[in-house]
Amino acid sequence: MKQQKEVKKFLEEREWTQYHTPKELLLGLVEEIGEFRNIIKWEKDENKVKQKIKNNFEEAEDFFGDMLWELSSLANYCEVDLSQALDKVIKKHKKRFPIDKVKGKHTNE
Amino acid sequence: MKQQKEVKKFLEEREWTQYHTPKELLLGLVEEIGEFRNIIKWEKDENKVKQKIKNNFEEAEDFFGDMLWELSSLANYCEVDLSQALDKVIKKHKKRFPIDKVKGKHTNE
Amino acid sequence: MKQQKEVKKFLEEREWTQYHTPKELLLGLVEEIGEFRNIIKWEKDENKVKQKIKNNFEEAEDFFGDMLWELSSLANYCEVDLSQALDKVIKKHKKRFPIDKVKGKHTNE
Amino acid sequence: MKQQKEVKKFLEEREWTQYHTPKELLLGLVEEIGEFRNIIKWEKDENKVKQKIKNNFEEAEDFFGDMLWELSSLANYCEVDLSQALDKVIKKHKKRFPIDKVKGKHTNE
Repeated sequence: MKQQKEVKKFLEEREWTQYHTPKELLLGLVEEIGEFRNIIKWEKDENKVKQKIKNNFEEAEDFFGDMLWELSSLANYCEVDLSQALDKVIKKHKKRFPIDKVKGKHTNE
Repeated sequence: MKQQKEVKKFLEEREWTQYHTPKELLLGLVEEIGEFRNIIKWEKDENKVKQKIKNNFEEAEDFFGDMLWELSSLANYCEVDLSQALDKVIKKHKKRFPIDKVKGKHTNE
Repeated sequence: MKQQKEVKKFLEEREWTQYHTPKELLLGLVEEIGEFRNIIKWEKDENKVKQKIKNNFEEAEDFFGDMLWELSSLANYCEVDLSQALDKVIKKHKKRFPIDKVKGKHTNE
Repeated sequence: MKQQKEVKKFLEEREWTQYHTPKELLLGLVEEIGEFRNIIKWEKDENKVKQKIKNNFEEAEDFFGDMLWELSSLANYCEVDLSQALDKVIKKHKKRFPIDKVKGKHTNE
């Protein structure tokens, strides 16, 4: 993901990497998740969940941007290449979950 | 992020989007964060935190892959383009945090 | 909650309060939540969620014990009395949500 | 914890148990944790963390009340007695971590 380095440069220019410790960033991710949940809280009907997200599209988009921002910073700390990490997971899942074995069934059995 | 569509295809082929509801995915992200925390828990010394992550590099890399996997699925649900969402946040932060105003200082004041 | 002081004594006797910093404990709570989620993940049917929890009763009970353990430690740090904090919330909710106004309706409108 | 039944009565009188599903409550807990983190975010100095919490005592107290509120509701769903669950954990920890074995040392080794 090309922006991973851009985040690194942004933080270094501001001498902010000192604050971006792993535990702080993990908590940052948690905070974002909590805020996103707030949009759809208590809704049981899946259509209403979808509608709520549509009605708050900008906030939802921010959520993803902020999550990726913090993940990029944490990945820089860990010297992990985000794009490569995702490729590996996709490859692993393809091998682990062949279509004909899992179609329509979830994996918590 | 090119893989966002790949995740979509993977899930649709397996008829798994039915399970990938927003609340389920938010909890999935939480579970990943908890697992990553487990690697570095109780460590106060930043050097030891770094070392623990290095010693568990594969698990750390998995964390990022899994987080991006679930974020991709949630973004597909929300019809958000992940790469664009991050670009917007970067642009916003550049405007909001000019180097000379914030250098070396964090923003929780 | 009578055990709040017991947790304090336990940690002090082991010189563990140094590790029980707020951020560490918040992440500890997150880890517990992630583990509990694992029991019921992907289940859409509320009856199956209930059954899964029943089948994993001991793990569920552990979850609550661990959550209260970490909350007790964090409350000790913050000099908050847990029982009193809950009493205040109950009182606030009773005032804010009179039965005849909210019966059967959730509050995310 | 005597209030566990009070929470049950409160929710039943308002027909709110239908919304208090396990996944919803887990996300509620996550949201509270995220809000608490917001008080102390980016602070590296433990004294400043403590001061920030002191300066926001009411919000911190609310956090504990809200966490216990949601835990009580989830415990009612799971038919777990909160006080008993904590007693069991305390007992387990006492056995697992004898003072002379662990004094001053954390357990992530």
